Amino acid sequence: MYDRLKGFRDFYPEEMQARRAVTETLEETARQYGFREIGTPALERTQMYVDKSGEEIVDELYAFTDKSGREVALTPELTPTVARMVVEKGKELQKPIKWYSTRSFWRYEQVQQGRFREFYQTNVDIFGSSEPAADAEILAWAADALTNLGLTNDHFEFRVSHRDILGGLLESFDSEVDTTAAIRTVDKKEKISTNEYYQLLTDAGLSEDQAREFDQLLSVPENELDELARTAGTDRVESAVSDLQAVLSAADDFGVRNHCNLSLETARGLDYYTGTVFECFDTEGEVSRSIFGGGRYDDLIGSFGGEPTPAVGVAPGHATLGLLCQRAGVWPEETLSTDYYVLQVGDTRPTASRIARSLRERGHIVEVDLADRGFGSQLDYADGINAETVIIVGERDLENDEVTIKDMQSGDQIQVPVDEFPGDHSRPTYETFV
Amino acid sequence: MYDRLKGFRDFYPEEMQARRAVTETLEETARQYGFREIGTPALERTQMYVDKSGEEIVDELYAFTDKSGREVALTPELTPTVARMVVEKGKELQKPIKWYSTRSFWRYEQVQQGRFREFYQTNVDIFGSSEPAADAEILAWAADALTNLGLTNDHFEFRVSHRDILGGLLESFDSEVDTTAAIRTVDKKEKISTNEYYQLLTDAGLSEDQAREFDQLLSVPENELDELARTAGTDRVESAVSDLQAVLSAADDFGVRNHCNLSLETARGLDYYTGTVFECFDTEGEVSRSIFGGGRYDDLIGSFGGEPTPAVGVAPGHATLGLLCQRAGVWPEETLSTDYYVLQVGDTRPTASRIARSLRERGHIVEVDLADRGFGSQLDYADGINAETVIIVGERDLENDEVTIKDMQSGDQIQVPVDEFPGDHSRPTYETFV
Repeated sequence: MYDRLKGFRDFYPEEMQARRAVTETLEETARQYGFREIGTPALERTQMYVDKSGEEIVDELYAFTDKSGREVALTPELTPTVARMVVEKGKELQKPIKWYSTRSFWRYEQVQQGRFREFYQTNVDIFGSSEPAADAEILAWAADALTNLGLTNDHFEFRVSHRDILGGLLESFDSEVDTTAAIRTVDKKEKISTNEYYQLLTDAGLSEDQAREFDQLLSVPENELDELARTAGTDRVESAVSDLQAVLSAADDFGVRNHCNLSLETARGLDYYTGTVFECFDTEGEVSRSIFGGGRYDDLIGSFGGEPTPAVGVAPGHATLGLLCQRAGVWPEETLSTDYYVLQVGDTRPTASRIARSLRERGHIVEVDLADRGFGSQLDYADGINAETVIIVGERDLENDEVTIKDMQSGDQIQVPVDEFPGDHSRPTYETFV
Repeated sequence: MYDRLKGFRDFYPEEMQARRAVTETLEETARQYGFREIGTPALERTQMYVDKSGEEIVDELYAFTDKSGREVALTPELTPTVARMVVEKGKELQKPIKWYSTRSFWRYEQVQQGRFREFYQTNVDIFGSSEPAADAEILAWAADALTNLGLTNDHFEFRVSHRDILGGLLESFDSEVDTTAAIRTVDKKEKISTNEYYQLLTDAGLSEDQAREFDQLLSVPENELDELARTAGTDRVESAVSDLQAVLSAADDFGVRNHCNLSLETARGLDYYTGTVFECFDTEGEVSRSIFGGGRYDDLIGSFGGEPTPAVGVAPGHATLGLLCQRAGVWPEETLSTDYYVLQVGDTRPTASRIARSLRERGHIVEVDLADRGFGSQLDYADGINAETVIIVGERDLENDEVTIKDMQSGDQIQVPVDEFPGDHSRPTYETFV
């Protein structure tokens, strides 16, 4: 007997059905916004990830040398791949480009709750617009997708921030501050001790007083943003504040403003973000980590050798999203459903098959006997697959040109002329004939 | 600029839309037969493939050593994985088990027409029934799926055979014949010269006369199967013939007999097949290779350490199937479709957004301006995404509480009260209001 690899999962039908329902909700919402599906490879050149994230990323990759000596890696995320695709088609593509896709990615990481080595994400991105409306549409898609899953303000919130507010504030203290290191420190504030937090901020070049002042500014409420801009007194902070306000105003027009809260402490660890950033959290904190996050990354396409192209996106991971759905009680039921089981008694397969076929042509899920079983055993099977209606095609009934329609919930049954079944009915059940 | 790996593909939205339509047809047909979707990992232990197919399979695999020293491989096919899953849950699973899934697989092979290193398949399998009805349901699903794609008898045929007829005939000549080698030779008959063909058959242990006689028996027509069984005079051939006849009879009941032709020359190269085998071919031979194939593999689950469990399945690859659809003229159109574009003129985003939102709630694909563009430029964009209807929300119209509905095909437009749009209409267009 072989074992599955650690951090990889098999999904049996019941669980898979729930997962598919969630995926379809995310994707259908994306399609309604005019996002178009793309398909992408599972392998890319390792160099692409090294250039984007540094040599140390290789430790997290399933990377190897292929049979022709190419250094390749199982894709750990989609962003570099879509950037490559945008660069490749360049000006051919009408802007804004709006793409989505759902697939698995791979990282060699410690396995823990909601984190696997093979994991699934729905990526949603807009390329070619630097307008706040694009940022807001990403927020709107995410909010509507979660709402369509049955989640509400009681379950989730988006904490929204802007990289240039953080960066500009740091610069306004001291132009020599290592802003990247300081922003990374803010990103991991909740995971480290207070001492370590301030130590890292001072390591990044802030004095102790500045570090404390900086930390206080992070909790500024939304109605004091203008004042914050004035205090900082730099163009960079001012324009970042007004950009963020424009994003929130567009989110208001788009009907999702109520899900968005200002949170300058939200920094997103990844260095490539350039403007708006946001993270989705469980409002009750039962799922302790960020559910997912996204933001603006205007420099990536240019750094990949393409025309400078602004970009904004988000990529909900299905594992943490599933945890949130479960704690909120909206995870889809993990039960199979079957519209009809056509039960054969004796040598009645031609008629049973004709009936099964007509019901399938009407779009229904229909099973028949494939194991040459007796009546009771077929009925058990029909019960096991949660068949709603069983059509019993028996030799004796057929002598009278009849079949029996059995409602599996009530156990009620009725005989109907075989010629009238399914007849003109689109979804005939016991109720249709009583 | 980074390049894509050879044999791997990017799918941009137009092509992806056609691919998704094909996948959904295959899957929807599977669901109607009561097949249930499963999800499976992209990586497995290399040993699983070596044990099933021999050491030489490793040359075709993307195999490597992971960071913990495990020998792993990107899955080249699904069968070993589903076998592992059946073994793992064992008796818990109600029989017959009917599973489907669509995903990519990877093989390090020469790239050619219809063959890539990353390729997509829809796998459909039944475990736990040795009845001919199970073989026939696999044929029926495949035939119905192709029919639902728009293909007919003019485009495809299933060539059906049985491993034990070939094996039994070979044994009846000489019990010392290497049947595996001989069956592999039959499988590649069309790819090698006649001389080589007979050479390989005699290498496998047949005399030259026997090889010629054997070859003639391969073209026996269906109505002479009984006679073939009598000629061979062995239980193995007799029971294989009667099994194959029962499969064809069930296919008749299931309404797909007309797609199935007897062809003892159809052998399927893979050693693990044990009973019925079949291959789908382009009837006109424009796609020269087999489109896909399948069959019965009753010994695999047992060899994986599970309870002996009969199995039968098929796995259409999307690349060759796509070639057939294209040559038959039924490949779905590669054009984007958009129900509505809501065009803003001036500062009308709150109203435009409200309209976009209501149309999306009715399930439509709706785009809005994300790039702060002027009227003409927005109209060009709407045209580029093939928007059917454009809703023009202009400042002056709004002063009169009106919006303009423009039909993009005819260019006709009409003004309607903003309060009545979309109103109670499920899919309001220009036609709704004239």
